[in-house]
Amino acid sequence: MPNTKIMMLLRGQNLLGYRHYADDVVDKFVETAANNGVDVFRIFDACNDPRNLDRATKAAKKTGKHVQMAISYATTPYHTKEVYADLAKTYADFGADSICIKDMSGLLKPYEAYDLVKAIKAKCDLPVEIHSHATTGLSVATLLKAAEAGADVLDTAISAMAMGTSHSPTETVVEMLKGTEFDTELDIGALLEIAAYFRDIRKHYSSLESKFLGADTRILKSQVPGGMLSNLESQLKQQGASDKMDDVLKELVNVHKDVGYVPLVTPTSQIVGTQAVFNVLFGRYNNMTGEFCDLLTGKYGKLPAAPNADLVKKALEKNKMTEPLTCRPADKIEPEWDKMVEEAKKNGGNGSVEDVLTYAMFPKVATKFFETRANGPVDAEKSFAKKEEAPKAAASANGSYTVTVNGTAYNVTSNGSSITVNGTAYDVAFGAPSAAAPAAVATTVGGEDVKAPVAGTLLKHCFSNGAKVTKGQTIIIVESMKMELEIKAGAAGKIHFIAPTGSQVSNGQKVAEVQ
Amino acid sequence: MPNTKIMMLLRGQNLLGYRHYADDVVDKFVETAANNGVDVFRIFDACNDPRNLDRATKAAKKTGKHVQMAISYATTPYHTKEVYADLAKTYADFGADSICIKDMSGLLKPYEAYDLVKAIKAKCDLPVEIHSHATTGLSVATLLKAAEAGADVLDTAISAMAMGTSHSPTETVVEMLKGTEFDTELDIGALLEIAAYFRDIRKHYSSLESKFLGADTRILKSQVPGGMLSNLESQLKQQGASDKMDDVLKELVNVHKDVGYVPLVTPTSQIVGTQAVFNVLFGRYNNMTGEFCDLLTGKYGKLPAAPNADLVKKALEKNKMTEPLTCRPADKIEPEWDKMVEEAKKNGGNGSVEDVLTYAMFPKVATKFFETRANGPVDAEKSFAKKEEAPKAAASANGSYTVTVNGTAYNVTSNGSSITVNGTAYDVAFGAPSAAAPAAVATTVGGEDVKAPVAGTLLKHCFSNGAKVTKGQTIIIVESMKMELEIKAGAAGKIHFIAPTGSQVSNGQKVAEVQ
Repeated sequence: MPNTKIMMLLRGQNLLGYRHYADDVVDKFVETAANNGVDVFRIFDACNDPRNLDRATKAAKKTGKHVQMAISYATTPYHTKEVYADLAKTYADFGADSICIKDMSGLLKPYEAYDLVKAIKAKCDLPVEIHSHATTGLSVATLLKAAEAGADVLDTAISAMAMGTSHSPTETVVEMLKGTEFDTELDIGALLEIAAYFRDIRKHYSSLESKFLGADTRILKSQVPGGMLSNLESQLKQQGASDKMDDVLKELVNVHKDVGYVPLVTPTSQIVGTQAVFNVLFGRYNNMTGEFCDLLTGKYGKLPAAPNADLVKKALEKNKMTEPLTCRPADKIEPEWDKMVEEAKKNGGNGSVEDVLTYAMFPKVATKFFETRANGPVDAEKSFAKKEEAPKAAASANGSYTVTVNGTAYNVTSNGSSITVNGTAYDVAFGAPSAAAPAAVATTVGGEDVKAPVAGTLLKHCFSNGAKVTKGQTIIIVESMKMELEIKAGAAGKIHFIAPTGSQVSNGQKVAEVQ
Repeated sequence: MPNTKIMMLLRGQNLLGYRHYADDVVDKFVETAANNGVDVFRIFDACNDPRNLDRATKAAKKTGKHVQMAISYATTPYHTKEVYADLAKTYADFGADSICIKDMSGLLKPYEAYDLVKAIKAKCDLPVEIHSHATTGLSVATLLKAAEAGADVLDTAISAMAMGTSHSPTETVVEMLKGTEFDTELDIGALLEIAAYFRDIRKHYSSLESKFLGADTRILKSQVPGGMLSNLESQLKQQGASDKMDDVLKELVNVHKDVGYVPLVTPTSQIVGTQAVFNVLFGRYNNMTGEFCDLLTGKYGKLPAAPNADLVKKALEKNKMTEPLTCRPADKIEPEWDKMVEEAKKNGGNGSVEDVLTYAMFPKVATKFFETRANGPVDAEKSFAKKEEAPKAAASANGSYTVTVNGTAYNVTSNGSSITVNGTAYDVAFGAPSAAAPAAVATTVGGEDVKAPVAGTLLKHCFSNGAKVTKGQTIIIVESMKMELEIKAGAAGKIHFIAPTGSQVSNGQKVAEVQ
């Protein structure tokens, strides 16, 4: 595609991963991406901390490619349009070629978009691109008002892949602006051909479709992204606390304020949401997750507004730190490229820079990919397309089918609860899938019980079996709701672990004993 | 709901049915609807022929209720905003209490909506309501610009039932306008409760969900409603002419012009679409459906622009008329209320006015309803909710299930093409559903073959079996694509029918013989 610019989204110092990488990995990644055909780098950070974009931006500028710096859009008492305009100005001073408003949750309303674009344009003389997800149903109207305010580029998706949590349909926006001063001059006929092509492709992935593709408007009140809401719902259910949803949503507002109104986008949405759940289940901040402490102590970057000082103190203690990190978080990360080269090779990489980077971003996925790469690409249609549904017995009086078993054909007729095979009727009922056999668990050994306070995965035993522990020491780490939670000894004694590492534990399950 | 006004949509002289009713039925219907709680009558006509709205409007005015007259919105070379504004003026003179722009296909673009509302407001001093379907993804933006132009009421649907071919989400529009001069002052919290309620209700009807709930943008180029496009596609497939779709879409533009740019909405969309298919399959206007001839000869009402004069002549001949109908079509319909009372009773009605009206609107559905009414309402969840899908064998390595047959439980494990029952593996393949046995057909009798030119239902034998026919006489009527198509004798002789009435005939199937 010589005439089509390829853009990639880069999570600043996180690149495509979920942690800060060392600068040498950032440099290598950007250089390789540019060499492999990326024309535009869209760089952002969940905290909107410019220092987290610094290295990636410099590396991208060095490649001579277009560098777009993106603002994570959130609606909080802190985030006024002036704050965003100042941020845009900072990015302009960094050397950004354009500014993007990244509205990942579809919160940007049309008239707010108008004011925001005007405010940014008043502060910096750069093209402004609007990236507004369709989730809440506002996006088409938002693009229209943004265009009226002078936005230069509008992000859309071809209609076959649009709406829901995706974007405004391209053809819709093109037709909406046709004949106006914002006419895109794109050929609707060509766009419809593209849409038809992708309508078919999408069918190959039908089993992965979300059940609800309309507009999710709940975020308009709660400010909580829809995906996160569903997560919270299922997590509460897992903890047997489905009735606490309203409490959690209320608590979330407090927690969000306590962490300085950090924009709620992966991973911050999960960190803030889980802490709200824990606050409701265990009392306010009685159980602070490791990630929440890291967020409070500056390890993710500078928080937009000042966090709750008492909480920061508590988090510093837990993190065994004397003061919050005030430098750029990545300044604390030693170069790691050489280590990655070695690890990638050890895990099946072919020695190419691309393999090292793939491994660095997604170690588990990459290892599996290296193993199976020789098999060639997966057939999406075979793997992900929904199979034709079984005949609806009730719906058809003549539900007659041929089923071939070991080469012999049987005439099968079904009418709801009974199935007739070659003339003989059978009453049939299907049971629920049987659960996988539980992992082997050591037997009870007597003494003070240690119980899992939440359902989750037992991540780590902090001592070897039989070691002596003192009261209050962290003995087990459980991963729950994607966050790490410590379990402490309630008494001193010898620790005997019952649930093995890697096992699923349920809420209240006895996982160890102190004798 | 004492504080909530109930609105109903009324298709003018069609009421809720698919034909013009006599005036006495119209009067009775409107009076009964008002007595039963309808507060606002929204009245429209597919042709935008005011004479088709006249009687219903007068009847509604007589009840003292709010009478809203609706414009069927189409985008054709004829339909300028001035034409619509004049129509609104006509409706105002009729005594309309408000005007509705009924944008049934989601064609109304934001800036066009702005101009249209302004044009209508300039011509008549009535509240204007916007009813824009979400089909193309434009609707939220359209409502916004309509509000800016002074529209008074915006139609929306609660988010759980919104988007796709429905409407803009209520909460989205409420939040979009919050804090502006158009603030609805509706409580977002209360709306979200309503949405949560209907999200659950919607699940009861999951088997009826459309497969594609995003934006359908094809209409933006073809002007053909999405539902009609899908119809055309499946009809062409049925006729073994799937490759002709592009030809049909091009021909549709010609046919649409030939019938004076009648707005494409049920039933006109089907009449125009099917004629375009027949023109492509059989040559231009070699086969004109009965409904197409009725449309051309004024039986549906006055066409917006002048129809093709040659075609009108041809249609008059076919309809055995000397000139097109220029009066109000319903003027030709004798009073029919007393007849309906009798027929409803004969078909199981309980003698109430409501039963007579139900029968008059939907004779087949009503007859079945009268029969089964005593059973009480259908359980929607049981009837329409998708059953849990069968386990995906390929997706789970441990796909283990218990199936109970005639009281004995079997452990069944499946892994794609093989199913293991109580330890024994079987290779299993499912065949396509076998077709229902064809209806009994008389044997061939020799002579000149009469073949079905299209796939469809054999609706009528125009002669008794063995009667003498002359060449060119219509001998059989087939219903294809919801339209009636005549089959003519190719030679003179005795007619012997082969396919019985009511039977499904395929394209090219021998249905009769002339000896």
